[in-house]
Amino acid sequence: MLDQLIAPDIKAAIKEGDLADILEYFRESHPADAADALSGLEPQEALEVLRKLEQQEVADIFCELSSSFQSGIAEQLDPVELTELVSFLSPDDRVDLLKSLPEERMDEVMPSLDKSDQEEVNRLAGYPEGTAGSIMTTEYIALPAGLSVAQAMVRIRKEAPDKESVYNSYIIDREHRPVGVVNLRDLILAEPESLLRDIMDDQVATVGADEDREESIYKLTKYALVDLPVVNAAGAMVGIITHDDAMVALEHERTEDMERFMAISGTHEDAAYLDTSVWAHFSHRVVWLVVLAGFGLVSGAILQGFESTLTSLMILAFYMPMLAGTGGNTGSQSATMVVRALALKEISPRDALRVLWKEFRVAFMLGLILGALAFARVVFFSSGTLLPAGLGMFDIGLAIAVALTLQVISATVLGAALPLAAARLGADPALVASPALATVVDITGLLLYFTTARIMLGV
Amino acid sequence: MLDQLIAPDIKAAIKEGDLADILEYFRESHPADAADALSGLEPQEALEVLRKLEQQEVADIFCELSSSFQSGIAEQLDPVELTELVSFLSPDDRVDLLKSLPEERMDEVMPSLDKSDQEEVNRLAGYPEGTAGSIMTTEYIALPAGLSVAQAMVRIRKEAPDKESVYNSYIIDREHRPVGVVNLRDLILAEPESLLRDIMDDQVATVGADEDREESIYKLTKYALVDLPVVNAAGAMVGIITHDDAMVALEHERTEDMERFMAISGTHEDAAYLDTSVWAHFSHRVVWLVVLAGFGLVSGAILQGFESTLTSLMILAFYMPMLAGTGGNTGSQSATMVVRALALKEISPRDALRVLWKEFRVAFMLGLILGALAFARVVFFSSGTLLPAGLGMFDIGLAIAVALTLQVISATVLGAALPLAAARLGADPALVASPALATVVDITGLLLYFTTARIMLGV
Repeated sequence: MLDQLIAPDIKAAIKEGDLADILEYFRESHPADAADALSGLEPQEALEVLRKLEQQEVADIFCELSSSFQSGIAEQLDPVELTELVSFLSPDDRVDLLKSLPEERMDEVMPSLDKSDQEEVNRLAGYPEGTAGSIMTTEYIALPAGLSVAQAMVRIRKEAPDKESVYNSYIIDREHRPVGVVNLRDLILAEPESLLRDIMDDQVATVGADEDREESIYKLTKYALVDLPVVNAAGAMVGIITHDDAMVALEHERTEDMERFMAISGTHEDAAYLDTSVWAHFSHRVVWLVVLAGFGLVSGAILQGFESTLTSLMILAFYMPMLAGTGGNTGSQSATMVVRALALKEISPRDALRVLWKEFRVAFMLGLILGALAFARVVFFSSGTLLPAGLGMFDIGLAIAVALTLQVISATVLGAALPLAAARLGADPALVASPALATVVDITGLLLYFTTARIMLGV
Repeated sequence: MLDQLIAPDIKAAIKEGDLADILEYFRESHPADAADALSGLEPQEALEVLRKLEQQEVADIFCELSSSFQSGIAEQLDPVELTELVSFLSPDDRVDLLKSLPEERMDEVMPSLDKSDQEEVNRLAGYPEGTAGSIMTTEYIALPAGLSVAQAMVRIRKEAPDKESVYNSYIIDREHRPVGVVNLRDLILAEPESLLRDIMDDQVATVGADEDREESIYKLTKYALVDLPVVNAAGAMVGIITHDDAMVALEHERTEDMERFMAISGTHEDAAYLDTSVWAHFSHRVVWLVVLAGFGLVSGAILQGFESTLTSLMILAFYMPMLAGTGGNTGSQSATMVVRALALKEISPRDALRVLWKEFRVAFMLGLILGALAFARVVFFSSGTLLPAGLGMFDIGLAIAVALTLQVISATVLGAALPLAAARLGADPALVASPALATVVDITGLLLYFTTARIMLGV
């Protein structure tokens, strides 16, 4: 690989008006590296370079740019340039770009496309974000079962330059349903006169166009496929998801899960961190923060209800942060385990009882250990706090230890139960995770804590 | 795809002694589906089925099983069976199995392998878990640049049945360094008499065997490759990472990141949730919980230091949970954004100042909103709490709002700074995330809160 060209070099070259070396780099390097180099520039600067390249080179680099940068460049193009660029993109990249354009710009481009391309754009644009259909490409090789291997190779050679993936050829029936698949490796190993129907693998994994893209990632991974056919409701093949698009989708899913986990809303498809405005960052975060702060006030109200207990036994306040934190941590841990196990299909909501029983046992052990440590801390290291008559540190330590054990058990079980319930109801398990859970656990923890103290200590 | 066979059907068939239908299913279905069906059984039951299949079928199914289930089956095999199974596995799966065996069982197997296979096992086993070397396979096609396309096709046809991936053939020089790559698609499109050196792509992306496997996933995704060559320190090619193994590794990384984020330790390579014992779950979680509970006690000690402030103004206690929770949430959000942006290479530790400045501005806006809401809550909805002479709800509301704003800003900036610092020091940014951060933020939050209250309210 060539050494990475960096944005300041390009800016300098633009200023000097000598782009020869820069263009040389762009022609020789991988489009993804070229896109990296461009993304450090302003869209106008990037255009100065792109305008000097061939249309196909521009299209290859363009589809590697982040969608926010793509929009920035598209804004600067005149209608003719935009139409040309769009015509050089592959169908899936074309739709992604057109979807991101304002309507009036889309209207400039659409009429100049072929009738069939227009229909394809409309069809592909119809698949909602996050579905298998939204990440598929329509460029795949479909062959009838009656061809010989030699005939198939002629067809593949003819079609290969236009297709995104040629490793698998799909054998389709009259209704365009995929009934078999032959791999290029099988074709080059087979006798030229063999028929496809005799050498094809008739176990074809497929995914529905309206299914979640997670499902397509799951199947590609499970069956170690280079691409996965996508079918419509009638079972007819409408496209394929290639291994590289699945990999990108998996990275997006990973980011989204993590962000949902941490109460960051929005889809934020692929705007890079530094390209996202302060305002966008703010608005993705503020909603959940306000909701959760509201719940935090509920905790405060509960505390207010126990004001007399707290006033007479201030030492209880000093263990509150530990209790709340430990509850949040144990709940997050079990929620994480369950959310990941659900995502990897290691468990399903039907396993709820087994999962909860397992978490209960884990929690019981964790609760005993943490309770014992808290007891030791209270009894052996407390000093300087006045206690009401008749209460010793032993009693208080015991009450705190019992409350902590109960808190760990309830938080762990809640942490496992909430994602399972969400999955059961068809919602995203990650949504109820971490901060939402920590807030719930804060509330249940305070109730457990002060109720235990009242009962055991009589304050 | 065939309908999924389920474990109870297999158990029933074993009991009746009639395995014909079951074996039919195993022979016709994808090995991954067969493995799914087996993993609901006890290892002994699985063995009853596997013993009736061909060695190659057994090996294909075996390598799809989770490593804990593999060990369970390997335990039940006699030395001859184990040796046979090992000989049918591909080099990477072979090493994974051998590494998981107790030493005495490994000693039963190793002597029966070829000298070259033994060396290969030792070499592959030498790459630590998590490196690119640990997920590579040594079965790839390497060709000299001087071959014609026709000669190359003869070689590929001969080697294809033994190789894990034949889509890319790597062109190597005398030192076995990869100097070019030709794709099977290019080969079938090229003139048979062309030389490889003339049609090959001389821009070969590579990854070092000792580099992090994340790096190989990053390059495979970025360049949309089906496989990526792995080189040793001298630049010689030692293997490839295939797209499907990268996909599996990416899922593992994703799980590990999430677990580290939530303070769950251990590597937990691929033992499924329900297959992991209660004790293992316990031990993965307990260490961090105890450490974090210890920090929770520090918060308590700080609180104790402000006992007089708290006693004279109990209303401050009621807003503590909201303050602590909001700090934890804002910190987790910024930490998540930064950890993900680092993982996706959108930012590097060198961008620290730009990131912190961006987070500061986001935090300032969040702090103002949340502070304003807290002020409104205190001033308009507080009742039933006695205040010391000379203090009104307005003063207290203002103090709480200021403290909350400061807490949001410091937590957000800390949440961004800690992962950046970890990355700078070469540690995993995810390690300092969520619970560890929430605990730090608890401590700084309490200090900010009571100090602000003391200064502004004079209590």
